[in-house]
Amino acid sequence: MTASSYDYDALFQQALDGLKADGSYRHFADLERRAGHFPRAFHHGLGREVTVWCSNDYLGMGQHPAVLAAMHESLDRSGAGAGGTRNISGTNHEHVALERELADLHGKEAALLFNSGYLSNWATLGTIAARIKGCVVLSDEANHASMIEGIRHSRAEKQVFRHNDPVDLEARLKALPLDAPKIVAFESVYSMDGDIAPIEAFCDLADKYGAMTYLDEVHAVGLYGHQGGGVAEQLGLAHRLTVIEGTLGKGFGVVGGYISGSAALCDFVRSFASGFIFSTALPPMVAAGALASIRYLRASQEERRLHKDRVAYLRARLDEAGIPHLVNPSHIVPVMVGEAVRCRGLSDELLARFGHYIQPINYPTVARGTERLRITPGPLHSRADIDDLVGALATLWKEQGMAAAAA
Amino acid sequence: MTASSYDYDALFQQALDGLKADGSYRHFADLERRAGHFPRAFHHGLGREVTVWCSNDYLGMGQHPAVLAAMHESLDRSGAGAGGTRNISGTNHEHVALERELADLHGKEAALLFNSGYLSNWATLGTIAARIKGCVVLSDEANHASMIEGIRHSRAEKQVFRHNDPVDLEARLKALPLDAPKIVAFESVYSMDGDIAPIEAFCDLADKYGAMTYLDEVHAVGLYGHQGGGVAEQLGLAHRLTVIEGTLGKGFGVVGGYISGSAALCDFVRSFASGFIFSTALPPMVAAGALASIRYLRASQEERRLHKDRVAYLRARLDEAGIPHLVNPSHIVPVMVGEAVRCRGLSDELLARFGHYIQPINYPTVARGTERLRITPGPLHSRADIDDLVGALATLWKEQGMAAAAA
Ligand SMILES: Cc1ncc(COP(=O)(O)O)c(C=O)c1O
Ligand SMILES: Cc1ncc(COP(=O)(O)O)c(C=O)c1O
Repeated sequence: MTASSYDYDALFQQALDGLKADGSYRHFADLERRAGHFPRAFHHGLGREVTVWCSNDYLGMGQHPAVLAAMHESLDRSGAGAGGTRNISGTNHEHVALERELADLHGKEAALLFNSGYLSNWATLGTIAARIKGCVVLSDEANHASMIEGIRHSRAEKQVFRHNDPVDLEARLKALPLDAPKIVAFESVYSMDGDIAPIEAFCDLADKYGAMTYLDEVHAVGLYGHQGGGVAEQLGLAHRLTVIEGTLGKGFGVVGGYISGSAALCDFVRSFASGFIFSTALPPMVAAGALASIRYLRASQEERRLHKDRVAYLRARLDEAGIPHLVNPSHIVPVMVGEAVRCRGLSDELLARFGHYIQPINYPTVARGTERLRITPGPLHSRADIDDLVGALATLWKEQGMAAAAA
Repeated sequence: MTASSYDYDALFQQALDGLKADGSYRHFADLERRAGHFPRAFHHGLGREVTVWCSNDYLGMGQHPAVLAAMHESLDRSGAGAGGTRNISGTNHEHVALERELADLHGKEAALLFNSGYLSNWATLGTIAARIKGCVVLSDEANHASMIEGIRHSRAEKQVFRHNDPVDLEARLKALPLDAPKIVAFESVYSMDGDIAPIEAFCDLADKYGAMTYLDEVHAVGLYGHQGGGVAEQLGLAHRLTVIEGTLGKGFGVVGGYISGSAALCDFVRSFASGFIFSTALPPMVAAGALASIRYLRASQEERRLHKDRVAYLRARLDEAGIPHLVNPSHIVPVMVGEAVRCRGLSDELLARFGHYIQPINYPTVARGTERLRITPGPLHSRADIDDLVGALATLWKEQGMAAAAA
């Protein structure tokens, strides 16, 4: 090294010290999920079993016997990995079958798999908005990082509209040239506040102004709709969306992402998206597991019914205990704390004293000042589990003299 | 829809028609890999078994009993998916163990997992180059799309240097301010031509001009070095690289990507990279399978020995038959065709008449005019398989009156 050279590590360390100073440095909990015993997991840091309350395996499909059986079977039949990109020997029959199932789930002509929901958003928006000349993307201000990065990547003109606000969206659509190609990009269930977009109003506006609609249903697929097709299915609106995007890693319990849409659109993304083309395909056994999960959830209502029951029960118990939580129409129960260090402190106490694991959510996942404990109760949490959690929260709320919710 | 609205599908279709017209439209082969019988696969389009010659599961680890056993075991123990991002309940003990193993494999302090090698390049270069003020990235002109997109994403200044050329790299380094932070980004084995970078010369230059070095060993890990640590390990240079990046989806036979480097660097990327933070973690069983594969290949030399033997044997047989192929020091055997339609035609004949599957490689994976059949023989191809393939190629070469290689 010459005298001129940077101490790069010192630069990195300095940035990390900044995070530590303001309480937003992240410590990952070292867990061991226990199939058959969800929501219990062994916490390696603590050396004991804990109850997990912040998983996005919302319905517990990650331990479902039908999913595990399909994966075991596929592993024995086709091996561990795909062995190539989709184009170069990496397409396996499970990918083809899964894409068909996903298209069918959303009532679309086609679907396209990606290695994650992050990639499906990034690659699809990045490719479409870049390759349609003069395309303008209208993006909800609360959109997920993966959509924001995709739009940024496209270098298309972007208009950010006020969260879930059709009035602001219309004003912006109206101000654009009538003949400009446009995409309205938004989510159904927003994962941190749990609110839900006015999908029909957005579709009406898109039609009126000749825009495509791009809907991220990552926190809804498997959970909403009679077949688990998401909020759009539940409301009978799926046919009005140009693209419905989803993940295989949350409600479906495995990993991966996808889009569904017209045959031409999916073929276009398949043919031009760098993030799709130049990457090893998902393992066939992952596709097989996701396929089993989707098929199961299309037929069974029990998980969705229990899910709703647990969410309602948790909310009722929190209300009784005076613990403040955001009201919303979804399954996400955010207990608001509002300060990074306190939020971490509560999480640490919950874990160490009561064996309840809820990761504190801090910046950059949510805005500073809105730090929270985000609780995602599911069909595998018993009512007794919920009673126990609320008891622990009530104890901490009292000990720390925190404000109770208005009755 | 109003009269003003675009026919978006027509736009997509038009672009696809362009690909079809110039022969670069991609048809995916619908395969079913058969664990225990690699390199055989069932070809659903053809309805028969074929021999796969273009897999990047270079050593056949995707069917290795140790890998499959680890995955079965982990599936039963921890279930299908991780259930969350790494920060929010998604870190499992297998991730922690795998990151330790990867750090150790490359002789680094730390490692960080991603859902794919594409993401590890994109997110790491995108984050480091964006967040170090005034950073300049010097990028080999043949770098993979994932690195190019990461650098583009960072919006840092980029200098593209001539492929594998230390003279051009030095001229560019010299012309930059001595105190500007810099990254020299390159690959070890280039996947389409099979040539190998002058790693030591690049490291010397980086030291002289105070630059970080970023090495993509995606096509080398598992295959080169006494423990499968890649070309840098083989040459005793691993300690001179700031970052060694790799995949778990090729030589290791599963799926996923990673970087290894200093603890501060990995923690920095972990803390700031959107593509790492905001995405569901790899399933624990994928991490378990990759861990088993790496551990096995650190100890066993047999796969690497056989791999070299098969590559040498294929080259010798191609030479005897007068089939032109690129000479290079790696395991990649590109048989040059030079025209998209002819390349596809050869691939189709090989498949339909002889049962050998080699995907034609066309634009944008390689430059137009350099279309090729890229062959990746492995330890699971027998010498008789190779004889059979070369016989088929020789027949087609003769039938189609194609130029033989100079003897
Ligand atoms: C709204 C939204 N979209 C996309 C993603 C990314 O999906 P995946 O986890 O499959 O990468 C997430 C979270 O992870 C998300 O919250
Ligand atoms: C040089 C290079 N880097 C990175 C990647 C991406 O790795 P992965 O397939 O794990 O996404 C590839 C190919 O897929 C590659 O060829």
